[in-house]
Amino acid sequence: MIFETIKSEGLAHFSYFVGSVNEAIVIDPRRDCQVYIDIVQREGMIIKNIFETHRNEDYVIGSLELSHFTGAKTHHGPGLAFKYGETLEEGQEFYFGKLKLTAIHTPGHTDESMSYALADLDASEEPVIAFTGDALFIGDVGRTDLYGPKEAPKMAENLYNSIFKKILPLGDGVILCPAHGAGSVCGGAISEREQSTLGLERGLNPILQKKKKEFIEFKLSEHHERPPYFGKMEQYNLEGPPILGHLPNPSPLLPAEFQKHIKLGALVVDTRTPPAFGGAHIKGSYSIWLNRLPLYAGWILPYDKPILLVLEDMRNLETAVRYLIRLGYDRIAGYLHDGIAAWSKKAFPVEHLDLLTVQELKKRLDRGDDLIVLDIREKGKWHDGHIKGALHIYAGHLQQRLDEIPEDRSIVVTCNAGNHASLAASILRQEGYREIYNLLGGMTAWQNAGYNVTK
Amino acid sequence: MIFETIKSEGLAHFSYFVGSVNEAIVIDPRRDCQVYIDIVQREGMIIKNIFETHRNEDYVIGSLELSHFTGAKTHHGPGLAFKYGETLEEGQEFYFGKLKLTAIHTPGHTDESMSYALADLDASEEPVIAFTGDALFIGDVGRTDLYGPKEAPKMAENLYNSIFKKILPLGDGVILCPAHGAGSVCGGAISEREQSTLGLERGLNPILQKKKKEFIEFKLSEHHERPPYFGKMEQYNLEGPPILGHLPNPSPLLPAEFQKHIKLGALVVDTRTPPAFGGAHIKGSYSIWLNRLPLYAGWILPYDKPILLVLEDMRNLETAVRYLIRLGYDRIAGYLHDGIAAWSKKAFPVEHLDLLTVQELKKRLDRGDDLIVLDIREKGKWHDGHIKGALHIYAGHLQQRLDEIPEDRSIVVTCNAGNHASLAASILRQEGYREIYNLLGGMTAWQNAGYNVTK
Amino acid sequence: MIFETIKSEGLAHFSYFVGSVNEAIVIDPRRDCQVYIDIVQREGMIIKNIFETHRNEDYVIGSLELSHFTGAKTHHGPGLAFKYGETLEEGQEFYFGKLKLTAIHTPGHTDESMSYALADLDASEEPVIAFTGDALFIGDVGRTDLYGPKEAPKMAENLYNSIFKKILPLGDGVILCPAHGAGSVCGGAISEREQSTLGLERGLNPILQKKKKEFIEFKLSEHHERPPYFGKMEQYNLEGPPILGHLPNPSPLLPAEFQKHIKLGALVVDTRTPPAFGGAHIKGSYSIWLNRLPLYAGWILPYDKPILLVLEDMRNLETAVRYLIRLGYDRIAGYLHDGIAAWSKKAFPVEHLDLLTVQELKKRLDRGDDLIVLDIREKGKWHDGHIKGALHIYAGHLQQRLDEIPEDRSIVVTCNAGNHASLAASILRQEGYREIYNLLGGMTAWQNAGYNVTK
Amino acid sequence: MIFETIKSEGLAHFSYFVGSVNEAIVIDPRRDCQVYIDIVQREGMIIKNIFETHRNEDYVIGSLELSHFTGAKTHHGPGLAFKYGETLEEGQEFYFGKLKLTAIHTPGHTDESMSYALADLDASEEPVIAFTGDALFIGDVGRTDLYGPKEAPKMAENLYNSIFKKILPLGDGVILCPAHGAGSVCGGAISEREQSTLGLERGLNPILQKKKKEFIEFKLSEHHERPPYFGKMEQYNLEGPPILGHLPNPSPLLPAEFQKHIKLGALVVDTRTPPAFGGAHIKGSYSIWLNRLPLYAGWILPYDKPILLVLEDMRNLETAVRYLIRLGYDRIAGYLHDGIAAWSKKAFPVEHLDLLTVQELKKRLDRGDDLIVLDIREKGKWHDGHIKGALHIYAGHLQQRLDEIPEDRSIVVTCNAGNHASLAASILRQEGYREIYNLLGGMTAWQNAGYNVTK
Repeated sequence: MIFETIKSEGLAHFSYFVGSVNEAIVIDPRRDCQVYIDIVQREGMIIKNIFETHRNEDYVIGSLELSHFTGAKTHHGPGLAFKYGETLEEGQEFYFGKLKLTAIHTPGHTDESMSYALADLDASEEPVIAFTGDALFIGDVGRTDLYGPKEAPKMAENLYNSIFKKILPLGDGVILCPAHGAGSVCGGAISEREQSTLGLERGLNPILQKKKKEFIEFKLSEHHERPPYFGKMEQYNLEGPPILGHLPNPSPLLPAEFQKHIKLGALVVDTRTPPAFGGAHIKGSYSIWLNRLPLYAGWILPYDKPILLVLEDMRNLETAVRYLIRLGYDRIAGYLHDGIAAWSKKAFPVEHLDLLTVQELKKRLDRGDDLIVLDIREKGKWHDGHIKGALHIYAGHLQQRLDEIPEDRSIVVTCNAGNHASLAASILRQEGYREIYNLLGGMTAWQNAGYNVTK
Repeated sequence: MIFETIKSEGLAHFSYFVGSVNEAIVIDPRRDCQVYIDIVQREGMIIKNIFETHRNEDYVIGSLELSHFTGAKTHHGPGLAFKYGETLEEGQEFYFGKLKLTAIHTPGHTDESMSYALADLDASEEPVIAFTGDALFIGDVGRTDLYGPKEAPKMAENLYNSIFKKILPLGDGVILCPAHGAGSVCGGAISEREQSTLGLERGLNPILQKKKKEFIEFKLSEHHERPPYFGKMEQYNLEGPPILGHLPNPSPLLPAEFQKHIKLGALVVDTRTPPAFGGAHIKGSYSIWLNRLPLYAGWILPYDKPILLVLEDMRNLETAVRYLIRLGYDRIAGYLHDGIAAWSKKAFPVEHLDLLTVQELKKRLDRGDDLIVLDIREKGKWHDGHIKGALHIYAGHLQQRLDEIPEDRSIVVTCNAGNHASLAASILRQEGYREIYNLLGGMTAWQNAGYNVTK
Repeated sequence: MIFETIKSEGLAHFSYFVGSVNEAIVIDPRRDCQVYIDIVQREGMIIKNIFETHRNEDYVIGSLELSHFTGAKTHHGPGLAFKYGETLEEGQEFYFGKLKLTAIHTPGHTDESMSYALADLDASEEPVIAFTGDALFIGDVGRTDLYGPKEAPKMAENLYNSIFKKILPLGDGVILCPAHGAGSVCGGAISEREQSTLGLERGLNPILQKKKKEFIEFKLSEHHERPPYFGKMEQYNLEGPPILGHLPNPSPLLPAEFQKHIKLGALVVDTRTPPAFGGAHIKGSYSIWLNRLPLYAGWILPYDKPILLVLEDMRNLETAVRYLIRLGYDRIAGYLHDGIAAWSKKAFPVEHLDLLTVQELKKRLDRGDDLIVLDIREKGKWHDGHIKGALHIYAGHLQQRLDEIPEDRSIVVTCNAGNHASLAASILRQEGYREIYNLLGGMTAWQNAGYNVTK
Repeated sequence: MIFETIKSEGLAHFSYFVGSVNEAIVIDPRRDCQVYIDIVQREGMIIKNIFETHRNEDYVIGSLELSHFTGAKTHHGPGLAFKYGETLEEGQEFYFGKLKLTAIHTPGHTDESMSYALADLDASEEPVIAFTGDALFIGDVGRTDLYGPKEAPKMAENLYNSIFKKILPLGDGVILCPAHGAGSVCGGAISEREQSTLGLERGLNPILQKKKKEFIEFKLSEHHERPPYFGKMEQYNLEGPPILGHLPNPSPLLPAEFQKHIKLGALVVDTRTPPAFGGAHIKGSYSIWLNRLPLYAGWILPYDKPILLVLEDMRNLETAVRYLIRLGYDRIAGYLHDGIAAWSKKAFPVEHLDLLTVQELKKRLDRGDDLIVLDIREKGKWHDGHIKGALHIYAGHLQQRLDEIPEDRSIVVTCNAGNHASLAASILRQEGYREIYNLLGGMTAWQNAGYNVTK
């Protein structure tokens, strides 16, 4: 038996490859699917079936792409009019090699959500591994707000029932394989540990310690953001996204060529770290550090404009491309050849964005400088403690609430650690704000420096 | 938390790397230990501690080698006079990153056998993973015969107590990480599945279904072979093996150079498949297919003679070298440049070893040809069913029992699938037997062809 | 300036990647063209142009495939009605980065053959590298027999003029980059050294030491074989072969599935070494050792039947697939899962093919055994010396001349080293010959053993 | 014949591997020598001999390290009391495989400088490749100033004679393989093209167009810098450097641990790009962008203090380590775990270094701001054109000439493109200068913006 977890960084998405003898299946494949083909070639197997745990809203599913290369059949849960693949029935069984996979309908996160139980027929018919999609995570459970507040109570109840009546009864010793790990937008409290079992979750998962009523109340009290790209993902994952065939190969553009693309309407995404962006960047560019691309791109990048990339190191190009196509951004016009150094040697327009240390901010606040601290963190974090007198606008709502931010004042943007603030600051720059600072180390540094917060 | 299983093929040995933040530990490192260094470099960690589950008898432990490169401390169980590392106390705790490892003395396989329980302090103090060494495997338990028949009842009882009183009580949801998988000489019935939990073993492991008395009786009834190299491993793993520094680089030898080494006493190990060995091989060479090198080499290769290799493909050299140094065979004089083709082009002495199909054997037996079927499988397999009239000598005892094999008869050697028989046939050849055949596909083919066996 | 030689083993085909700043060109790309895309991604370049030196007859050109991924334009020499790409004019210049490539019409091997001169504009307009296709090799020149004996004198004269009036005048210091190295079917005497200059060839290439008349006479006296697949290559390279998109992924087939494909008409190609094939092989299979697949496959495999592979090691699958698709064999039905061992364990029909050492053959010939030595080497080799009394039929003509080989005699097949003979022997087996032997080490061994040959 | 150029980036150092059949040699191996061992393992060879072209002054030679792993013999030119290896005689010949290497004494760069001519015995005894060390480069020749101004005329004459009487006579068609490419400190005008021949150099190399007298005058007029680390290299390469055994594995240090090392005297080298360093860096650190580490480290880093690294991306660690050990900096105490982001989240002391665009500088100069432009380029570049009123101090002499730089003025540091200036600025910061700016894009940007320079 070959078992591999394929982790897509940034999205913190887990997909699974399971094979036995010469047959294999894949759970929730990602769109850049060569990774599964590499495994079957290494192991001498064919992929017979692809199983989706649900219509994902946070990334483009790779079922159609993987099917295109392998001929594998795709299977979905019931209740949605998918334009590709086949609908599963409760308890439907699939045999491959010496293994058996059984489909279990576990609604709650979405109506068509499925879990799957894997049995090793060499040992017994009993399940040994459970794939739980977005129903049950390690240390957390799936969000139940996606159908809106009206449906939320019912969704939460469904999820409770799915977990307590269908998943946990599979047995304490069953290994847990969820669809996401720590850092996903699909759960705020997922553990950094990626190994667990149903027994460990029954005992240690804080949400599973609640009674049904508490569980539902807790789920209704949670606040999750919903980035605008979710709509595109839902459409793609229902109808089937375009087949890529291979990863896009963006062109290396000399500064003059790059500038030409900008003039024709392409958007510049600068994937360097916030200090590098702060030191020097192309006017009008978005600051999205490479590691945060999967989290922030979907909030600000439209689907109808080509994207241009600025990279710290050309070797990061492939990573940036993977991150973008996983979110359906397939139009990547090119990247800046030799990076920002080439641009500055040409004396093309460059801007700075100053970073303020927490010590500098403290000093300025203490002496009463006329500045606004703009806190762009999620609501929950803001409520846990913020700098006295700060203005709170969630980063994702910035463009809608610009009128609340005065243009004639110095603005210090802060987030948890300085990455999201760099993006927010770059947006404000594009909107004409000139006196913008990014708080280096964000609220983490502020608190580590021992400065006060208010709640 | 970074968790990786490092599997050493052939030995079916599992070692484990566990890291958190910038600190890591390794359980039972193998001797070719660059693999752990690669992980710490990729992940940005240092290895603080190395834990041995017991003094291994089937391979050279890599603790000293890994310590040499990393400065990590090594820890052993109590009761043996190890010449390196430190002795653990029951319940001793080790903190690294956000994790805690607790030492648990679990004698039975050997007296100093240790298990280790890992807790994720982000979640709780409760164990989430158990490293059980050779105490508890997936589908099997450790062998208890190593101290001889007199000690065996006590060892079996110790093992029962270790498993039922110390390991299983850690909880059904705890993930199981043993020291070996299917194919190891340390357990005959280990599952091919490499994922399990204490709960799954409690329910599915056939040996754990037995009561204490049955358990002990069963363990005493088992028969395990003990290859001669175990003694060398026990000495190395007590005193510490020589530091390699890097993998040996055997020289590519032209046929004339290769022949010179043979004349000086080096042993030739032909790692090609049995059909290739059968087709043409260097006179006097041992037939040990590359994949079986970790299993068979320790039975026949002495430690005081240099080894020469014949390879199917030069790219297999590194694998062969790894297999040999894991067993302490560090004197590899060289390999045949351009392989057997170069040798035959020089018209140097070459021999054949005919392979017989089961159909051919059946025909010869039916017509009463004067031949001996020599079955070299383990006792258990022989008792399960063999060809009527066959002679049984276990491969490992062949050289001691040559007088039972007449030299003037045709001998058809058979094993499970034809690999071990090829080695046995090559040994008989060296002893002067001329009419030797290897049964292609072995007893597996015989039975698949529908021919009878007797018990 | 980035300069890389991409060598396709087996075909001994060289293609070239040349880039400067962010622009690059490729000369004679191969069909499995990811290798060029990997370079541009690593170096930060785009491929602007693809140049063919001629319509190749020995492999499928990758221009169309590479164009499909990169949008690069393809350029051919004049005089053939290519269905893709553009026709070059003598002296046409192409600028990319700081480099310039100039097209030079150099007919002789074929009418539309082109060479290309590269200048480094940083240094001067003078050429520094010459790409000479199949006109001039290291130690040899291109064959001039492809248009038939009637055209051959004119082709040879053209080649002489192309080399002496167009290529050599580029300058002694110019680096030579031909389309093939040692082992190609396009030249019999190409050097094993892969570095040369026009000056070195002018001085050392034996054919360039001849006067024009001698040169033409020598070319007319040469004998080259013309494998049947050349026709298919010429058609593909004129009209454009099918786009692959990605390497085919042949399925791993269990023995029963494999057998089913055989019954449906698929051909079995056993890519193991001759000794392994000799030891045990599937009845009816062709013996073509992996390393010889590019040379022998085009002689015997038809284009209308699916191909099944037997591999020594699954990791060789990709190599086998590359070798086949480079010759246009895109229908690869699958490969035998777990190889010949799986097949024999199922007790499916297996045959032997005995290998004879030269010593054994000598003994049999000396004692007057009734056997035929069948020498299947090329005419030239045969004339250089063969075993007295041997029958000569070139391997490529075997199937047409079967009536010359008696069915009731023992036949010992010999070639240079034993690889080609294994294929010939496997063909004879398929034709019903039973007493077939492959001479181990071939005529090389025979002569190394000191035995006589006649001329 | 296997021929590979091993290029060490940064140093622009070329070493060469040449092999035939199963024997190989290496010319000028680098210290991180696993690369050669990988080739012999892939190709099935052993390294018999190592040849040094001279006692290198710009990097630690790897002969002793490679000998340690392979047992190969090392050979030097005559006249220096090397403490390892053997001294060559003029015309001494070495045979390996089917090749021959001949030693040729070619003094001029240094007295013991050697060249080597390679012949392919399959073709003839004539040379096909010349390894010319630091005597003849592509587009340039070796520096002749290393023995001081008194010896320089004789050295230049020696070099002329070596090139014109020994190297060029080998033949126009001979391929040229020098010890350095573009970017080396051993030659200022070496071509970016890495392919050449003696014929091409005879015709295109500007220095070889000069008559003897002009040649010597030109060499005497050249100005080359001599970094302080040259002395250490000369000592190491005469006596033999310490054996590393393997690349150092610097520890990942949490911010508090990192700070502790700083307090104990370790030096911080920040290898991020100048904009990133400018945005935020640890107080007291040196700014040396990774790609410039081989060029700048030897100017400022002492050999008696441990080094701490700040990296943009942990994956660059190995590159940084290689760069440092090639210069003999073996004491690398560790690197900052999770980089500058971790440091700032801890609110540890961070500084900025503002980057000025050329437009901003122009504006300030035009309006008469009180600032000093400090030009730190090499003398030659300064003479070619600089900003009016600028102060010139070569970067390498900065610490000796601090008294010329007023502490109470704004200082804008400029170099060619902004990288070297970042280092200079970071040094001034350490010396207490507060108002320091790095000119973004340097003089390249200034001139591309169309602003005036004076000479």
